[in-house]
Amino acid sequence: MGIIHSSRQPAARRTWRQSPPWRRLALASLLGLLAGTGQAAAIDGYAAVDPFIGTAGNGHTFPGATLPFGMVQVSPDTDTPDFKHAYAWAAGYQYHDPTIKGFSQTHFSGAGHSDLGDVLLMPMAGQLRTEPGRADQPGSGYRSRFSHASEQARPGYYAVSLDDNRVRVELTATSRVALQRYSFANGQTAHVVLDLRSSIYDYPGKTLWSWIHIRPDGLITGYRQTRGWAPGRQLYFALRFSRPPTGHQLLDTEPTPVYRGFAPPAAHEPAARPAIQGRALEAAFDFGDLKGQALVVEVAISDVDEAGAIANLHAEAPDFDFDRIRRQAEQTWRHQLARVEIQAAPAMQRSLYTAIYHALIAPNLAMDVDGRYRGPDNQVHQARDFSFYSTFSLWDTYRAEHPLLTLLQPPQLTADIIHSMIASQQASPYGILPVWSYAGLENWCMIGYHALPVIADAWMKGIRGFPAGQALQAMEASAEDPAYGDLKDYMKVGYVPIDHEPEAASKTVEYAYDDWTLARMAEAMGHRDLARRFQTRAGNWRHVFDARTGFFRARLSSGAFRTPFDPAVAGYGSDYTEGNAWQYSWYVPQDIAALIRAQGGNARFVHKLDQLFEAKVPAGAFANVEDISGLIGFYAHGNEPSHHVAYLYDYAGQPWRTQQRLSQIVDSQYGIGPDGLTGNDDLGQMSAWLLFTAFGFYPVTPASNQYVIGRPFVQRAVLHLPDGKDFTVTADPMDAAHPYIGKVTLNGKPLQRTWLWHKELTAGGELHFDMQASPNRQWATSPAARPYAMTPDDYR
Amino acid sequence: MGIIHSSRQPAARRTWRQSPPWRRLALASLLGLLAGTGQAAAIDGYAAVDPFIGTAGNGHTFPGATLPFGMVQVSPDTDTPDFKHAYAWAAGYQYHDPTIKGFSQTHFSGAGHSDLGDVLLMPMAGQLRTEPGRADQPGSGYRSRFSHASEQARPGYYAVSLDDNRVRVELTATSRVALQRYSFANGQTAHVVLDLRSSIYDYPGKTLWSWIHIRPDGLITGYRQTRGWAPGRQLYFALRFSRPPTGHQLLDTEPTPVYRGFAPPAAHEPAARPAIQGRALEAAFDFGDLKGQALVVEVAISDVDEAGAIANLHAEAPDFDFDRIRRQAEQTWRHQLARVEIQAAPAMQRSLYTAIYHALIAPNLAMDVDGRYRGPDNQVHQARDFSFYSTFSLWDTYRAEHPLLTLLQPPQLTADIIHSMIASQQASPYGILPVWSYAGLENWCMIGYHALPVIADAWMKGIRGFPAGQALQAMEASAEDPAYGDLKDYMKVGYVPIDHEPEAASKTVEYAYDDWTLARMAEAMGHRDLARRFQTRAGNWRHVFDARTGFFRARLSSGAFRTPFDPAVAGYGSDYTEGNAWQYSWYVPQDIAALIRAQGGNARFVHKLDQLFEAKVPAGAFANVEDISGLIGFYAHGNEPSHHVAYLYDYAGQPWRTQQRLSQIVDSQYGIGPDGLTGNDDLGQMSAWLLFTAFGFYPVTPASNQYVIGRPFVQRAVLHLPDGKDFTVTADPMDAAHPYIGKVTLNGKPLQRTWLWHKELTAGGELHFDMQASPNRQWATSPAARPYAMTPDDYR
Repeated sequence: MGIIHSSRQPAARRTWRQSPPWRRLALASLLGLLAGTGQAAAIDGYAAVDPFIGTAGNGHTFPGATLPFGMVQVSPDTDTPDFKHAYAWAAGYQYHDPTIKGFSQTHFSGAGHSDLGDVLLMPMAGQLRTEPGRADQPGSGYRSRFSHASEQARPGYYAVSLDDNRVRVELTATSRVALQRYSFANGQTAHVVLDLRSSIYDYPGKTLWSWIHIRPDGLITGYRQTRGWAPGRQLYFALRFSRPPTGHQLLDTEPTPVYRGFAPPAAHEPAARPAIQGRALEAAFDFGDLKGQALVVEVAISDVDEAGAIANLHAEAPDFDFDRIRRQAEQTWRHQLARVEIQAAPAMQRSLYTAIYHALIAPNLAMDVDGRYRGPDNQVHQARDFSFYSTFSLWDTYRAEHPLLTLLQPPQLTADIIHSMIASQQASPYGILPVWSYAGLENWCMIGYHALPVIADAWMKGIRGFPAGQALQAMEASAEDPAYGDLKDYMKVGYVPIDHEPEAASKTVEYAYDDWTLARMAEAMGHRDLARRFQTRAGNWRHVFDARTGFFRARLSSGAFRTPFDPAVAGYGSDYTEGNAWQYSWYVPQDIAALIRAQGGNARFVHKLDQLFEAKVPAGAFANVEDISGLIGFYAHGNEPSHHVAYLYDYAGQPWRTQQRLSQIVDSQYGIGPDGLTGNDDLGQMSAWLLFTAFGFYPVTPASNQYVIGRPFVQRAVLHLPDGKDFTVTADPMDAAHPYIGKVTLNGKPLQRTWLWHKELTAGGELHFDMQASPNRQWATSPAARPYAMTPDDYR
Repeated sequence: MGIIHSSRQPAARRTWRQSPPWRRLALASLLGLLAGTGQAAAIDGYAAVDPFIGTAGNGHTFPGATLPFGMVQVSPDTDTPDFKHAYAWAAGYQYHDPTIKGFSQTHFSGAGHSDLGDVLLMPMAGQLRTEPGRADQPGSGYRSRFSHASEQARPGYYAVSLDDNRVRVELTATSRVALQRYSFANGQTAHVVLDLRSSIYDYPGKTLWSWIHIRPDGLITGYRQTRGWAPGRQLYFALRFSRPPTGHQLLDTEPTPVYRGFAPPAAHEPAARPAIQGRALEAAFDFGDLKGQALVVEVAISDVDEAGAIANLHAEAPDFDFDRIRRQAEQTWRHQLARVEIQAAPAMQRSLYTAIYHALIAPNLAMDVDGRYRGPDNQVHQARDFSFYSTFSLWDTYRAEHPLLTLLQPPQLTADIIHSMIASQQASPYGILPVWSYAGLENWCMIGYHALPVIADAWMKGIRGFPAGQALQAMEASAEDPAYGDLKDYMKVGYVPIDHEPEAASKTVEYAYDDWTLARMAEAMGHRDLARRFQTRAGNWRHVFDARTGFFRARLSSGAFRTPFDPAVAGYGSDYTEGNAWQYSWYVPQDIAALIRAQGGNARFVHKLDQLFEAKVPAGAFANVEDISGLIGFYAHGNEPSHHVAYLYDYAGQPWRTQQRLSQIVDSQYGIGPDGLTGNDDLGQMSAWLLFTAFGFYPVTPASNQYVIGRPFVQRAVLHLPDGKDFTVTADPMDAAHPYIGKVTLNGKPLQRTWLWHKELTAGGELHFDMQASPNRQWATSPAARPYAMTPDDYR
C-alpha cells in the first residue's frame, strides 16, 4: 500500500530465469541432507537471509539490524528527502545511493508511506561537521561515501566502512536498544553527531519540539515530538557511550523565537548548558584519539518517557558488550529462521529465508520493560498480562502476514497482538480497532476494518489468551462506527455512495468481507443474532456489482452507477483504492462461488481472469498511483488487492491455470539482490505471499480456516509448528521444466481437492506434490474439489 | 520584576489621603469589639478583600477565583495580545478594557513577564461565534462587552454579566478544578466555545501541539504544549458539562500540513470526529435552550497527563455542585484571612486583607492528587511525603513573601516548598535550585540564587520537615555552578566581570548576600568549613563598591570599573538588573554596618539615602525599563531592589527617618481600587511588604531571624501564629497626624532597639507603639539599638 504520487520504476531485477538452474543445486543439497541424519539441521537459514533484498527500487526494506518484532530497527539512512521526494526512501535506504547520512534507530520495513528515522547518529574522524552536507559534494558535511563492498548485513547485524568519515560502523540490537560500534583508526580524533532534526519523510515543521539532556552520569536522554504520519508522536531516548566524551556541544539551528529571546540576558540559562530544548536540535560529542579502541553507543527508545527509555537501556543492554548482544541477536534469528526448513534452489532458498526474515520484523513491540505504552489517545497506559504491539499495516497484513504468524509463531504472539488491538480500541478516541497504527498511534492509512479478519482468523484457528468478549465488542464497534469511512450510509443502504465518500467500490467490498469475518467469529462464539446480522452485511458486495460490465463499480446515493466508467482508470478520484476495476473486481473472498455465478459462470470467470493477466497495459499507465506496481497485464502483484487473484482459477475448476499464473508471478515478481521485490514489502505481506505460495497453499480467505492450493516452489519445506508437530511439504521434480501439479498426497493419501484445512496443517503430516511438465487438467477440477465446496460446519 | 519594554503609566489612584479619616472608623470598630467578648471575631477579613485591587495599570493581579496556593486560577481575560503589547495583560485582565474575551483557568498574580491563560472558555447565547472578534467591534466575535456594575469578586468567587453574549458567568474553584456556571435567559440557544489557541503573552507558533478528545461518557480531555516563558510546558485538562451538549464541533483553524494532507482521502480519519490534534484547535458545544437551567462546567488541570486531570476532577469536584464548592472556597479563604485580625482604617484594612489574599495565591500546588508532578527535566516524578509546589518568583519573594508565609502559615507549607525546590534541583538538568519556575519548569528569569535565603531563613527559624542535608547540598551546588550567571569568574575573582556577563554589579551583590545565607545555615548545621567558605564569599560585595562615587559599579575583568558611569542610568546594558546605581547601592542586607562604614559613616549614609528619595527624576526616565515604577526620587517602590531601603535609616541611628519614609511610601504607593498597586504585585511580594510594614516591622535580612522596626499602620493586628500563640501589635493614636513612634513596649516592657527577633514573635506577646505627631529623635538611636548590634550567636 502507499499513497503518494511519484513513479519510480524498479531497476532491472535478476529473476528466477536468470538464476542458475535450481534443480541440480537443490538436489545436491537434498542429497547432502539424505547422507546425514535425515534431519534438516544442515540448512543454514540464517546464512541464507539477504537483508539487502528489497533495498533498491520499490521494496522499501532496510538493511540494518533488528530483532524479530523488535522495538528498534537501527539502520543506515542514505537520504531523508523532503516528503514530496521521499517515496523511495520510506525505509531510509536506497541501495544505489552513494552516501550514508547517518544511522537512525527506527524504520518501517517495506512501507509505502513512512515516518521514523529517529535519533540519527553519525561518527566521523578528523574535523567535526554538524551539517549533513550534500551527497554530490563529498566533504561538505557529515555524510560519507561508502562502497557496498564494505557492507555486511545479517539478521541482527550490519556493518559498513565510511570512506570520508574514516570509521567502520557496526550495528546490532536488542528488542528496545540499538547498539552502534565505531572503530576509528589510531591517531584520528573521533566525533559523533546526534542529529535530532533528521527524519524519514521530513517536511518543514515536522518536529514540533525536542530536547536533549546530558546527565552528570554521562547518560544522554531526550525526546522529540513530530507531526508526521501519526501526528503528535513522542519518541524518547536514552543514549550512552562506552567511553566518556572529552567534550560536547548542544546546538539549536533554529533558535526558538520565544518571548525571552527578545529580552536582554539577565542571569538566564547557564551558558555551558547540559540541556537544550527546541525544534532543530543537535548534539556533537568529541572523543579525542581513541587509540584504536572501539566506541560503542547504546540507544534505548521509549514511546512513554525518558524513565522508560532508561529502564529499557538498563534491562536490555546493561554493559557495552556489542559482541555478546550481536551473538544474542544472531541466536534469536537462528531460532526463528529454524522454524521452517527449506530446501529449494539456492536463489529461491535465499528469497524464502529472506521472506521469513522480513515477515518477522513487524508488528513491533511498543511497550517499555515496565509494561507502559502509549495508546491511540496519546496517553500512557499499563499493559497487564500481555505485551503491547503496534505497527499494524492491516490492509496489507491481514491477508497472509498474520495467517503466517498464526501458523508458525507461538499462539501467545497473536494473542498479544489481538490484546493490543483491543486495548487500542478501548483507549481510542474513536472507539475503533487499529486501521494503520504504529507507536500505539493511529494514522488512518488505507481503508476497511481489517483488524476483524485478523482477530476472527485467530479465533477460528483456536487461538485463545485474549479477552474474546471484548474482542467481539471491539469488532462490532469498529464495523458500526457511523463516522468511519461512511459506514453510516453503508449500514443504511448496503453500499458506500461515491458522492458521499471516495473509493466507494473498494470500501463496499472490503467492508463486506470484514463483516463476514465478524459473522464467523460471532457464530463460533454462539452469538447467533450478531452473526446473522453481519452475515447479511457480508452480501453487500452485490450492491456494487455491475452485471452489465462484470465489474465492481461505485454507485451514487441515487442508486445509479457513477458514469463515465472506464475499468482501466485507477487513482485518486476513481471508484477504487490504489487500483482499478480490473484489479478490484475479484474481491469477494468470503464467497467466490457467488462471484463466479455473478460473473456468468466458470468459463466467463476464467476468461475474465485471463483478460486481467493478459491485458495490454501501456507503460506508465499507473504513473499517478504509486503502489500499483509489479504488473502482469492489469494484475499488479506489487500491491495487495491482487494477491489472492491467481488462486481463483481453482474455484472455477481450472487449478492448472492457478499453477501457471503462480509460476508467472513468482518468476517475474521476486528475485535475489537489492531489487528483488517489485513492490513495497508492506510490513511482510509481500514476503508472506511468497512463503505460502512456495509451500503450495495460500490463505485466500482468512477466517475460513482454509488454505487454497496453488503450486509449490520448494523441494521440501518442514514447518516446525509451535506445538511441536511438523508439517512437511515435498515436491518432485522441482524445476522450471515441471511447473504443474500431477497429483497431491496428504500423509500418503491422494488429495483430490484444491484446499487444505488449518487443522490438517496443525495435525502435522506431509503434503507431497508430484510435479510434471504439462498441466493435469483432471486433478481436482470437480465442483466438490473446489475451495468453496466446504461443509457447513467449517464454512459459512 | 519583569522584563520587557513598554511604558504604561498607572492610572490615577485613590491614595490614603483621599480615603475617609481612618482613626474614627477604626476606633468605632474597636469599640464594637470591646463591647463583645474581647475576641476579634467581628472582623470580617473576607469581606474586606477586594480582588480588583491591582487589576488596573501595573499591579497585574486578576479578579478571578482561586484557592490559597491553588493549582487553578480561573479568571476573565479581557485581552491576550501579542507579547510585544502584552505587558499590561500579564494576568489577562485590565480593568479599563471594555470586553471580556473569555475565562481561562490559569493566571499568575502580579507577574511582570507572563504566560498561562490556558483552556479559555466562553459562553454565548444565540448565534455561535468561534473567533474572538475585535474589542472595538461589538458582535464581531465571541468577545462580549460587560460593565463593572455587574461584576462581583470575592476570594474564591467571581461573577460578571456578559452584555453581548447574554449570559451571567460565575467562577469558583477547588485547588485543581475550576468551575464556571453559566446562566442563560429562557428561550436562548446556548453555546460554549473552548478556544485552545488563546494564550497570555501569545506569539505566532507559541502553541507547539494540542489535542481535544470528546469521550463517550461526555468528559472532554485535552492538552496543549506551548513554547512560552517555560518552553515545552504541557498542560492537560479534563472538562465536563453538567448537561450533555446537544452537539459539538472540533475546529483546527491552522490545519496541519502533514504529509497525508497532500494525499487524497481514502478511509482516513472519521469525519464526525471525537478528537482532534493540531496547533490551533477549538471546540464548540451547543446546548439548545436550557430553559433557565444553569450550566456548570468543571475544568481540572494537570501538568502530568489526562489521567491526572481526570483523577483531579473526580477527587475534587465529583458532582457539579457549584454552590457547595463556592462555600468551601469561601470557608477556606475565611480560615486563611482569620490568621490575622486587623483593625485599621477601612481603606487600610481593605488594602491589608487584600494584601493577605494576594500573598496567599502563590506559590502554587503543581501536583496531581496521586502525587505525580513534572520536574524541570520535563519528566514526570512522584512526590513521596511532600506536596510539590511551583510558581517561584524567587528574586521577588525571598524578601518578604516567604518570610510572611514562614511566620503565619503552618510550617508544613514552607517545608513542602523547600522539599519541592530540592526535588527540582535533583531533577534539574542544570543541577541547581529554582530561579523562576512554574509548573515545575525553569524559565531563568531574573538573577541570583535566591532559593538559598528562602531555605536558610526557614532553617534558622526552626522549620524542619525537609531533608536538610540534601537542601545544603542543593544550595552549595547552586552557588557553585560555574556555568550559571558567570559564577565561574565570581568564584575566581570575587566579582562578576561586566565584560563577561551583563548586569554584573547587581549579580555580584546579590550572590554575596545569597552566599551569606548559605553560610548561616551551614554554620547552624555544624558545617564549619562550608560556612567559612561562604562567609568569605559574603564579603564579595566590597569588590564592586566604588569608594570614590559611593556606588556599586560593575568592574571589568581587568579589575577597573567600567566607564563611562552615570548613577542614573538603568536598563539593559547597564551594570544593574532593573535598576540603576542609586537603587542598587544599598544591597548588603547581610552587613549594613559595613556598608555604612564604606559609605563614610552614618551622616554620609543618611545624606545619601535622602538623596535617593529626593532626587529630581525627569518623567519617563525609566521608560525603557518596565519594572522600575512607583518612584519617589530614585526610590522605586514598584520594584524589589528598593524594598528594604527605607528601613536603612534605622541602621544609621535615625529611626524617625525610616518612619517618615514609610509614611511617604505607604501613602503614595498603595491604595484601594483597581489601580491600588504602583508596581507588579510580583506573586505577593508587594503585598507582603505592605503587611509587614503595617505591622511595624520588616525582614530586611532574611536568614538573620531579625525584623527591623519601621512604624505600624494598624491600630491593632493579632497574628494568630501556627502553633496557637498570638502576637499582637497595637498602636495609638493611629492616624495621619501621628506618623512617628514615641515609644515601643514589648509585653509591657520598653523596647529600646529597632529590631525584633523571630523568637520574640513566635513566643507570642504584644508589641505596642505609642505614636506621636513629631519625630522622637531619642528613641532607639544608640549604636546598641541599631539592627546590626546583634549577639554573635544570632548573627555572624
